[in-house]
Amino acid sequence: VDAGGSGTGRAVFVFDAFGTLFDTASVVDQLVERFGADAPTIAASWRASQLRYTWLRSLMDAYEPFERVTRDALMYAARSAGLAIDEASADDLAAAYASLPAYPEVPGVLADLQERGATLAILSNGSPAMLRSLVEGASIADRFDALLSVDSVRVYKPHPAVYGLVTDRYGVAADDVRFVSGNPWDCSGARRFGFEVTWIDRASGAFDELGERPSRRGSDLRVLIGVGP
Amino acid sequence: VDAGGSGTGRAVFVFDAFGTLFDTASVVDQLVERFGADAPTIAASWRASQLRYTWLRSLMDAYEPFERVTRDALMYAARSAGLAIDEASADDLAAAYASLPAYPEVPGVLADLQERGATLAILSNGSPAMLRSLVEGASIADRFDALLSVDSVRVYKPHPAVYGLVTDRYGVAADDVRFVSGNPWDCSGARRFGFEVTWIDRASGAFDELGERPSRRGSDLRVLIGVGP
Repeated sequence: VDAGGSGTGRAVFVFDAFGTLFDTASVVDQLVERFGADAPTIAASWRASQLRYTWLRSLMDAYEPFERVTRDALMYAARSAGLAIDEASADDLAAAYASLPAYPEVPGVLADLQERGATLAILSNGSPAMLRSLVEGASIADRFDALLSVDSVRVYKPHPAVYGLVTDRYGVAADDVRFVSGNPWDCSGARRFGFEVTWIDRASGAFDELGERPSRRGSDLRVLIGVGP
Repeated sequence: VDAGGSGTGRAVFVFDAFGTLFDTASVVDQLVERFGADAPTIAASWRASQLRYTWLRSLMDAYEPFERVTRDALMYAARSAGLAIDEASADDLAAAYASLPAYPEVPGVLADLQERGATLAILSNGSPAMLRSLVEGASIADRFDALLSVDSVRVYKPHPAVYGLVTDRYGVAADDVRFVSGNPWDCSGARRFGFEVTWIDRASGAFDELGERPSRRGSDLRVLIGVGP
């Protein structure tokens, strides 16, 4: 990979956080104590509702930060399964989203890209505080030039104002940005904005039918440095 | 119920279509021939993806009519389940959404409200052609003063521009509109816009955690005329 960029500028690699750098499936571990065998179902429903609420709140013009959306989605997931949960407990459990582990290959790939001279940033639905907590917890804070949060535009992905945070910050054209996400709908939104997009297809899933396709696909971040499966 | 309205105007009752007047679960019957025992799973995944794509396309500023979104969502649902489907077959199956049956109590309740002097309208994600097909198929076309489609504003629910179609057409304040939906997120969006909202909770489900609550709840449309369970 030419991490020096196409054309004149340095390459800017922009990473989604949840499901791309950090393992959202790991919240199951934190739910087991409370929900037992229902934990995997609750975890999947929680994540789906969390995303659903980001889209709905954006469309309703009713933005609330990701901590709040995450807590509300957990309460809904529990209630939908017929399991009671109070707001204080939901707050405690929702904190799991600020302490997710990085996927195993992430620290090495980020270090490699940085050594090759690339500029690295995160662009995420997470609040600034959540993003700081995540990169510090995974000891990868020093890899990033910027942690860009939707919180500054008060609308969630895939609204174009979110992707515009990157071109505004770096003063580059959209097609000079290498965007990396494990979420197909995020890849679609980024591609529509004009980014060059790599889909990290960790679960061998179907890509979304939203009229946009990623430029390339890999099963983990090693595709960015030309190694791995 | 005072169908004559609160204050000076006639009451305007505005109904969501899919899951409120028309039974989306009935598409299972059309999927059985092709998907066999997988039909219920595909039907649920199809509906979830259909809604997801309306929200994502709205946020991405990539509106396509509901026929297209419905077809794309079916292709995704089939592929996600590891089942192949070509676009022509998806088009045929997706036509099921233009021929859904009305729930059993719907014709009687609409007739009753109309006899009491209420003005009735539909406000739906469906295209104008789909909505005409649905009301004609269920023999309830004469009940409605208007079939209002998101297609005229090219953004889906719960964007406020959609709910604004009602206040624009009838020249009434938002809180003079009686909105009726079986979809909690639609109820939340309508309530945020200012409508008086009745949630038709056909499946005894959990209401969404989006910071808005319906004014009342019923298990079917009979709650609007003060009878039923």
